[in-house]
Amino acid sequence: MVRFDIVSQGEELVSGSTTDTNATWICAELKERGFTAGWVTVVGDELDGIRDALASAARRARIVICTGGLGPTSDDLTTDAAALAFQLGTAEDPVALGQIEERYRSRNRPMPPANRKQAILPTGAVLLENQWGTAPGYWLDVDGCRLYFLPGVPSEMKRMFAHHVLPDLAARYALPPRRTVQLRCIGLAESEAGQRMQDFPLPGVTIGYRAHLPEIHVKLHLEPGVDAGPVIAEARRRLGDYVFTVDGGPLPAVVGALLTERGETVATAESCTAGRIAADFTSVPGASAWYVGGAVVYANAEKVRQCGVDPAVLEECGAVSEPVARALAEGIRERTGATWGLGVTGIAGPSGGTPEKPVGTVHIAVAGPDGTTHRRLKLPFDRARNLQMSTALAEDLLLRRLDGR
Amino acid sequence: MVRFDIVSQGEELVSGSTTDTNATWICAELKERGFTAGWVTVVGDELDGIRDALASAARRARIVICTGGLGPTSDDLTTDAAALAFQLGTAEDPVALGQIEERYRSRNRPMPPANRKQAILPTGAVLLENQWGTAPGYWLDVDGCRLYFLPGVPSEMKRMFAHHVLPDLAARYALPPRRTVQLRCIGLAESEAGQRMQDFPLPGVTIGYRAHLPEIHVKLHLEPGVDAGPVIAEARRRLGDYVFTVDGGPLPAVVGALLTERGETVATAESCTAGRIAADFTSVPGASAWYVGGAVVYANAEKVRQCGVDPAVLEECGAVSEPVARALAEGIRERTGATWGLGVTGIAGPSGGTPEKPVGTVHIAVAGPDGTTHRRLKLPFDRARNLQMSTALAEDLLLRRLDGR
Repeated sequence: MVRFDIVSQGEELVSGSTTDTNATWICAELKERGFTAGWVTVVGDELDGIRDALASAARRARIVICTGGLGPTSDDLTTDAAALAFQLGTAEDPVALGQIEERYRSRNRPMPPANRKQAILPTGAVLLENQWGTAPGYWLDVDGCRLYFLPGVPSEMKRMFAHHVLPDLAARYALPPRRTVQLRCIGLAESEAGQRMQDFPLPGVTIGYRAHLPEIHVKLHLEPGVDAGPVIAEARRRLGDYVFTVDGGPLPAVVGALLTERGETVATAESCTAGRIAADFTSVPGASAWYVGGAVVYANAEKVRQCGVDPAVLEECGAVSEPVARALAEGIRERTGATWGLGVTGIAGPSGGTPEKPVGTVHIAVAGPDGTTHRRLKLPFDRARNLQMSTALAEDLLLRRLDGR
Repeated sequence: MVRFDIVSQGEELVSGSTTDTNATWICAELKERGFTAGWVTVVGDELDGIRDALASAARRARIVICTGGLGPTSDDLTTDAAALAFQLGTAEDPVALGQIEERYRSRNRPMPPANRKQAILPTGAVLLENQWGTAPGYWLDVDGCRLYFLPGVPSEMKRMFAHHVLPDLAARYALPPRRTVQLRCIGLAESEAGQRMQDFPLPGVTIGYRAHLPEIHVKLHLEPGVDAGPVIAEARRRLGDYVFTVDGGPLPAVVGALLTERGETVATAESCTAGRIAADFTSVPGASAWYVGGAVVYANAEKVRQCGVDPAVLEECGAVSEPVARALAEGIRERTGATWGLGVTGIAGPSGGTPEKPVGTVHIAVAGPDGTTHRRLKLPFDRARNLQMSTALAEDLLLRRLDGR
């Protein structure tokens, strides 16, 4: 069990203005590969503090990932702190300087004098080129611990980590080359996914879970030589038809890809979700190829005007009912001429519930060339999450018509 | 300068599944009150690790806020770790036990035997009642440092902090009773807000900034005896009409409150924002009193069908143009009978831009009883953020008609 520590550096992280999401990301990456998480130490722009945090992390762990504090300004103190912590000198690294100068040259801008500071590394540091920003990274070996220093900007940090740190760790710890398969589920809680995957019978598989609400992602990490086919089949058997894609994208993107492939379109008529499905669909670049638009029918009068819902049905069954959901889906399909129509009506809460129709009651319907399907949801969450789940399950109801689940 | 440290405890925080947002919140609360941030140490469910983290935090700081690990299960180790760190015994606290039992009684449920563990406190601990959950908190004085132990559930932690920790700190450090005024701005970057507020001339005011995108919040902390009137007037003068509320709620809630007060309604016709304004409005509970619904007119044919946009205008000026935005706002107002109509059309990116209409070009319009107003936006962000800002600035354009800014 090889232990890693993280030292996250930056005044913004301890002043309350920024949350340290870098540490979460690094922890997930290293845990998935079998390393043991030690401490995450978050420290502001304070030379002695960074020095002490680095020194104690290096005593505790064999791998230390340090992010932040490599910039050109006077409050970027990480390199000075590392030199103090491990009694090293510092010197300008000509290769690092060349890389920084080259980055400015390629953008036709002169290098500001302040950036020269970023080429100063502790003695013995091994340079890690940063192709995505000006701050070079490096590693340093101290008494059996390797400390990796990466910039704090998340996009740069992640690329440096994938490009430099992971290959180095794979070589040092003989990490087996892995294949990872990702199953995305909708409508299943993370704990339920965990229970269904318990005592997974096939060897050579490590299972990880991540909640990207409303989706739950189940990751299967396969050791070398493990045949993916039977592993995926067994996982699908256990997770059931909650799995809407293997190694595909987010739910609206999967819907969009299938519609594009089929040359079909969809329109939406939303009451309680009020534009959330429309917003979700149009978060996919290029959605105009398959998403037409639709209606937000928050008021009952709009359900009648925009989708032709029969006022007598509204009166008799209420706005939150199966016939109204079906009428919304069918009405918007007919009026827009889209291949598919999606209708949603429900009570998201916190108020508006009755004994017969409690908060969380949502009716979703999909109208298509071969008829209309309907589903009644009983959601147990708060308003925001009820709306989020209604949106996703309505999209999933359409996807089930498309993929035949 | 009194220094505080934070120890965040929980395996989920170092396994990559949860980001430590508690620390960010606590840092902001304490920094605003003049305390100096030391380290944040995040540690998993490891008895020795928590022990060492607590001991070293208590050596470094005079205030330590420790969150998490107070639950009833075997991986809740904080109390045992505190006892080890400071060589204290532990004992069941009858008052704590009574509070836990009472919480279960009030919900008509028997207390599970495991929860009895939560009443065990280190010797010398001062109990802090948790009225919002079962895990009692406590504080502990060790060599000039006071350690506050709070549950890790954010909602419980925040209430315990406000109810117990802040009043205690105020008494110990003679914090002046403060009044805080919050100005919410839209359309202004945080850095620009900071520049405008620089060298604030009135004494007795501490200024804080928080980005709650798309809003920027400027907080004015007033010392006792400072007259709020002139301070707010000076801040408004500097921040200009970007300020849409003083001590009010989020933008859609402020719009809703004003419409409710006036007995008016609004409808939306959205092209690029595609339901985001509708979703935003209906995130406000009770929105049905003032939000009617509207159209998502992603395809040009829908702009014609749902809002009566003249196909010749679409042809001549293009979908992203002032006349089309005006026609959307006016068309949806007329067809729904709402007091106000909101129209948005634009190019969010990443593709679809032209030299005359680059990505980020968005036209917003508000139609009302006394005519239609229009604004052209040139947004510099990525697709998601362009859509977020378009949504907010369209809402703000309506609000300006309502509040006369």
